[in-house]
Amino acid sequence: MKLVTIDDVRAAALRIRPHVVRTPLLASPRGDSERPLWVKPENLQPIGAFKVRGAFNAIARAITRSSADSSADSSGASPAAVVAYSSGNHAQAVAYAAAAYGLVAYIVMPEETPGIKVRRTRAHGANVALCAAGQREAVAARIVAETGGVLIPPFDHPDVIAGQGTIGLEICADLPSVRNVLIPVSGGGLASGIGVALKALCPGAKIFGVEPKVAADTAEGLIRGHRVEWPVEDRNRTIADGLRSQPSDLTFAHLQQVLDGIITVSEDEICSAVRELAYHDRLVSEPSGAVALAAYRQDATPPGPTVVILSGGNIEPQLLLSILADGLQY
Amino acid sequence: MKLVTIDDVRAAALRIRPHVVRTPLLASPRGDSERPLWVKPENLQPIGAFKVRGAFNAIARAITRSSADSSADSSGASPAAVVAYSSGNHAQAVAYAAAAYGLVAYIVMPEETPGIKVRRTRAHGANVALCAAGQREAVAARIVAETGGVLIPPFDHPDVIAGQGTIGLEICADLPSVRNVLIPVSGGGLASGIGVALKALCPGAKIFGVEPKVAADTAEGLIRGHRVEWPVEDRNRTIADGLRSQPSDLTFAHLQQVLDGIITVSEDEICSAVRELAYHDRLVSEPSGAVALAAYRQDATPPGPTVVILSGGNIEPQLLLSILADGLQY
Repeated sequence: MKLVTIDDVRAAALRIRPHVVRTPLLASPRGDSERPLWVKPENLQPIGAFKVRGAFNAIARAITRSSADSSADSSGASPAAVVAYSSGNHAQAVAYAAAAYGLVAYIVMPEETPGIKVRRTRAHGANVALCAAGQREAVAARIVAETGGVLIPPFDHPDVIAGQGTIGLEICADLPSVRNVLIPVSGGGLASGIGVALKALCPGAKIFGVEPKVAADTAEGLIRGHRVEWPVEDRNRTIADGLRSQPSDLTFAHLQQVLDGIITVSEDEICSAVRELAYHDRLVSEPSGAVALAAYRQDATPPGPTVVILSGGNIEPQLLLSILADGLQY
Repeated sequence: MKLVTIDDVRAAALRIRPHVVRTPLLASPRGDSERPLWVKPENLQPIGAFKVRGAFNAIARAITRSSADSSADSSGASPAAVVAYSSGNHAQAVAYAAAAYGLVAYIVMPEETPGIKVRRTRAHGANVALCAAGQREAVAARIVAETGGVLIPPFDHPDVIAGQGTIGLEICADLPSVRNVLIPVSGGGLASGIGVALKALCPGAKIFGVEPKVAADTAEGLIRGHRVEWPVEDRNRTIADGLRSQPSDLTFAHLQQVLDGIITVSEDEICSAVRELAYHDRLVSEPSGAVALAAYRQDATPPGPTVVILSGGNIEPQLLLSILADGLQY
């Protein structure tokens, strides 16, 4: 299996630069003396999550391939459309990126998707197709067949992984002395990409994936040496709704190569980290976005400068309020 | 009266660069079509507010002057201490910057200052002197006399104004087409500095100060053509506790020169902007930090790309919760 390379990540950075926020590394005064702490606030991206990086890179590559084809056969120079299935941040990221490139987007979402997420996706001009649970991949495949569109998967694609990896380039540029990087793991595209960049440019840094304890399929899989399936009803127990997916063969192969360990966190630890980010770092995080800080608080990594990835900030107001209200000791 | 120049601001930028966050300009999807909207998130600075920019510049300049003196008279090369009086973000900014330069800091705070602010200032290693209301300038002067320290005022100083002005350099670099910049006004150091930078580098941009309606002394003063005093008990009515000060002669002279207008906002509009920043921009703002977005929502500026300064994010958890809970329509 061909893995993503540092050259792929560097090329992605050039492609996406006009479209994404070059997020700063924010030094936290609440790191411990052994492990000074920085936060990488990807909640500040357009649509509020790192997913725009992979979406822009994958769509830009699809346009390039389509143009190359067209110079051979003289058909159109851009793909007819882009297609994605997602109930979460990937939906908005693809809708947003497609609009920026002037492409039509079809986003397949389960019928039970909260209305606010459907509305926000449509607000970027995307065509949203609601479908029954479990049908979204099939519906997306049919739209691809009917429209000649290009499917942009949420993590299982080298261009998506390379796009997410641009976060790693920025970390190495801003903090070359980094020793630990803590990254949320769900489908694994984010940790795969950042890991590729870090292992190439900051080989002394340890890369830790982070999962909720109740959705720790990757932690178990890495111990066993192969992917394992956890029942979706188990994974759905976590409040971190962005971390309920499982790696693909492609991302799992990357994770086996780049991760130095996985740290699992409890639901209480996740909520505590959401509070800490709001009250002390002035950043609104969704539960999935806060797991890396929760893992940092376990003191489980070696000493040295440590970066936690705040992967996204899309949280329902009512949920944010209820988490914040639990934490008035802050 | 000698005003701050663009060269002063540029020199400040070089001095403070290692110490402050180069904040990104964040494009908001909720700008109107006539006036695309960007947020400058100064709540992401260390200590959570723009005040570090002026503090670092003023202390660095004091060290330079002290060194120049010492080469003439062979006394010590740094000031003996830095001294500030503040109940708010300036206290923490001076404490933080003094620690970074290895200097002793004395911060004079009113006895009624909330405990959390006193603790956070002490956490940076500063000596905090609590004093009776109305006594803080006198106490600070006595400490200066006793220690030979250098007073770092919250806004009434060219070096502080120049430091805050570095925000303007960053706006012009990131968005040369900017047409409107909306800036909270209290003592006026922030708007003075940003205005100097913008008028020099982006002369087509209009600069608007923003004040709470219930603390709108500067709006009245600019109409009258001279500073006016509002009773402190009037100014204290605003929830925006960082906007209860009034300009000095120095900052008022700058504001007369650089401001194209002042927009005043209601207390409800301020709270609504705090909610919008949290729920849509994933940023925690203090009320004072949200007034520029509140002013944007009045549609009172000319068309064109518009930047609002989010000046700070230090808000008590209980207050944040109560404001957010009011806004579940978001």
